[in-house]
Amino acid sequence: MTDLDPDEFRRLGHAVVDWVAAYRAGLPDRPVRPAVTPGQVRAGLPDLLPEHPQPLHTLLETVDHVVTPATLAWQHPGFYGYFPANAALASLLGDLLSGGLGSQGMLWSTSPAGTEVEQALLDGLAGALGLDPGFTFAGGGGGTIADSASSAALVALLAALHRSSDPEGSSTSRWRDEGVDGHERVYVTAETHSSLAKAARVAGLGGRALRVVDPGPGGVIAPDALAALLRADVAAGLRPVLVCPTVGTTGTGAVDPVRAVAGVAREHGAWVHVDAAWAGVAALCPEHRGLLDGVELVDSFCTDAHKWLLTAFDASLLWVRDARTLPAALSITPEYLRNAASDSGAVVDFRDWQVSLGRRFRALKLWTVLHTHGLEGLRSHIRGHVALAAGLADRVAAEPGFALAAPPSLALVCLRCDTGDPDADDRATRALLAAVNASGRAFLTHTVVDGRYAIRVAIGGVTTGAADVDALWDLLRRCAGWVAEQAVASDDVSGAPRHGSQL
Amino acid sequence: MTDLDPDEFRRLGHAVVDWVAAYRAGLPDRPVRPAVTPGQVRAGLPDLLPEHPQPLHTLLETVDHVVTPATLAWQHPGFYGYFPANAALASLLGDLLSGGLGSQGMLWSTSPAGTEVEQALLDGLAGALGLDPGFTFAGGGGGTIADSASSAALVALLAALHRSSDPEGSSTSRWRDEGVDGHERVYVTAETHSSLAKAARVAGLGGRALRVVDPGPGGVIAPDALAALLRADVAAGLRPVLVCPTVGTTGTGAVDPVRAVAGVAREHGAWVHVDAAWAGVAALCPEHRGLLDGVELVDSFCTDAHKWLLTAFDASLLWVRDARTLPAALSITPEYLRNAASDSGAVVDFRDWQVSLGRRFRALKLWTVLHTHGLEGLRSHIRGHVALAAGLADRVAAEPGFALAAPPSLALVCLRCDTGDPDADDRATRALLAAVNASGRAFLTHTVVDGRYAIRVAIGGVTTGAADVDALWDLLRRCAGWVAEQAVASDDVSGAPRHGSQL
Repeated sequence: MTDLDPDEFRRLGHAVVDWVAAYRAGLPDRPVRPAVTPGQVRAGLPDLLPEHPQPLHTLLETVDHVVTPATLAWQHPGFYGYFPANAALASLLGDLLSGGLGSQGMLWSTSPAGTEVEQALLDGLAGALGLDPGFTFAGGGGGTIADSASSAALVALLAALHRSSDPEGSSTSRWRDEGVDGHERVYVTAETHSSLAKAARVAGLGGRALRVVDPGPGGVIAPDALAALLRADVAAGLRPVLVCPTVGTTGTGAVDPVRAVAGVAREHGAWVHVDAAWAGVAALCPEHRGLLDGVELVDSFCTDAHKWLLTAFDASLLWVRDARTLPAALSITPEYLRNAASDSGAVVDFRDWQVSLGRRFRALKLWTVLHTHGLEGLRSHIRGHVALAAGLADRVAAEPGFALAAPPSLALVCLRCDTGDPDADDRATRALLAAVNASGRAFLTHTVVDGRYAIRVAIGGVTTGAADVDALWDLLRRCAGWVAEQAVASDDVSGAPRHGSQL
Repeated sequence: MTDLDPDEFRRLGHAVVDWVAAYRAGLPDRPVRPAVTPGQVRAGLPDLLPEHPQPLHTLLETVDHVVTPATLAWQHPGFYGYFPANAALASLLGDLLSGGLGSQGMLWSTSPAGTEVEQALLDGLAGALGLDPGFTFAGGGGGTIADSASSAALVALLAALHRSSDPEGSSTSRWRDEGVDGHERVYVTAETHSSLAKAARVAGLGGRALRVVDPGPGGVIAPDALAALLRADVAAGLRPVLVCPTVGTTGTGAVDPVRAVAGVAREHGAWVHVDAAWAGVAALCPEHRGLLDGVELVDSFCTDAHKWLLTAFDASLLWVRDARTLPAALSITPEYLRNAASDSGAVVDFRDWQVSLGRRFRALKLWTVLHTHGLEGLRSHIRGHVALAAGLADRVAAEPGFALAAPPSLALVCLRCDTGDPDADDRATRALLAAVNASGRAFLTHTVVDGRYAIRVAIGGVTTGAADVDALWDLLRRCAGWVAEQAVASDDVSGAPRHGSQL
């Protein structure tokens, strides 16, 4: 018996639960982004590999003294960076259940319940999002929980490569036997997430396979430009394998015209993968269902439960219209994985829907969120943030010296300083971002829109509410005032205003 | 405020901790592998997506009534299948802390503590395993926690492809620009884990790139055969990219001669990746350090903390000798990920060591295990299982009607029925496996050794002790007796003996 005994686990488990509750409750009093220098954490760590067992409380003390003071607080109500990664406490309960079961669901037979709960959840969510029934297992498609949208994009590309080299859909193909041939092309825009470029590289296509479609108005894919590019490539002997429209780009939340893109792509047999990593979950709300217009025409669709749907990272939801496509591309069965259930063809083995063999029972944390919040709770969560973003965008648009850098999209607002001098505004916006982040009261990140530096405000924290966004707006105005006074031309914000608690 | 409030989380969290404690404590009274038919779980599930919030206890009731009765119990003391996935309760505490922090460590700047704790742990473990200091960050290399050995093999292959097309180690290469060219070759054996074949497929090389080296005595790589194959391939204009020796094959736990393989591979500039997914952690014990002989000569080394080192899936440890290699192959930096710390070059951004962008703070669960067990506790854990396996192997070797199918390796024993008639023995071994698994008292899996069907007994459960292995041996003998009596020629074990509790 090498493990904690159950009674000791009860005692220590309660202590860790209490630690988590206290940490989350205390977040508003902490800086969102603490000041940390490279090497600081390592220098503060005690011996991490003791010879003999140590009591848990000494680890918790180290976490308190060394780890949390050097942790960007993604769950802080003032976190507006990147896209949110809102890990609701409810999802942690499900994750703990999953660890307790400790089953590894590579095959149906190694976790029948894990496999079927995941299938049922993904079928249910497909309905709740308004996806075409063809994306459910009952409809011949199906969904799976990947670790990230990056992995989802990669397996979609692999299925596309397989299909592209063998349109008949068998489990052999030139791609499986001989690999890529250098003629494959993948169509994205300059705003497509970098995970698509990474997937193309991983899949052995190299950067030359990436075709960046010229943007139309608003920076989204111009279907005519896509059509022209596809025609020219096909005429040149190249093979369009995959087209990736984005619903909610990382930069500004822009939405590519999926229906038109799918129409064009299908003419050339290209797989269409919709990356809706952040924005897709908003389709739970009927008023945002339009985001998915045309998705019924595509081959695969991905949205993350771990961004804006309260489920702790990692839980990326991937649906395909044809459940055979991923196993056809990815399955390899050595003797030690053979089993009667798989041979029967009556079950889904999720190992064949991903690169890794092993997998956790991620569905439990998603299920716990859906169960304890209900669909109405999730819709309310999303609607609350969208309303806060609309309010913030109105303030930005009305405020002298500020401008919206792009139209607000759902809960994402992109803004910049605006005095009419582009270079000065870029410097001021950069300084404003640095000043806000240095304050510790909010954390924002940046992007570039039409060549201009812009601040992104991605509202989506589990506990982010109206008072937090009010405080952010106050902070933005004060910091902008300070920047204007200083005419700051660098990232030196040592004199910038600090608000609230001592940092 | 969409989340549980902290007090409610305390109450519910304690309830889930208690559920996990009770589940683990009750495992010995459950069948390891319950009888489940495809579709049974889905049919038993209530509405998983309620409109309105539901109390947690109703979810726990569904888990009790539908999920656990349909879960292969990987944490059961009678689980000897595949390789163990021993998820010690201590590791769950660390995973819960990680979820509580909810930080996403794609960049150093998005989780400074997460990044540096991981670096420190991997450096420390490198020392504890006796790896060459060149695998530590201080030594110019470094380690990372991947989700699985499959992913580790894939990124090693990608780094190898990059280096192979650009020996100078820059961040551009023909591979990054143009992809693979069809001349790349990857060297494995018939016993190499299927994840290598999958990695080659994912990377766009196709099955033809896999070169299966003829085995020498014991089925392990014959260095002379490898050398001849490499020479012939180079002469034919092909490019040896990666050679993968295995330390502890999945089938029988065999160990390829790493030192000799590395010597041969290096002559042709091929990357050497050692897959020690299961066996590598045994090197914590000085008496098993010989497993890693020659590893100081290779480019990358992988062993899983989630198999036999008590850390809940997923935690696969990957070390490389040159910390620049993975980022050189994998880094892509869009504007929204740019930050001062990364630009300074003074930090490690672990997103560049993996395919996905996002990542959890997995180091916390590993740290918790190391802290609460200490290195001596972990060595004792491994030694206990190795001793149990040796005892079982002795019994098998001495028992009429049984034979060892391969020499025992660490905690893995491969056995078969042995009456001298190969076909009859294969049928009997198959029937024996089915009978043992149907009993619910133990779960075993199979492999094929030298063309003969064999049962694998992979000892490694967190709570598996001497009494459990004694009971397994008793069960094996009884079931074998029943099989011999029945002269069972099929998998119909409806009349096989049942032992212990009612199933």
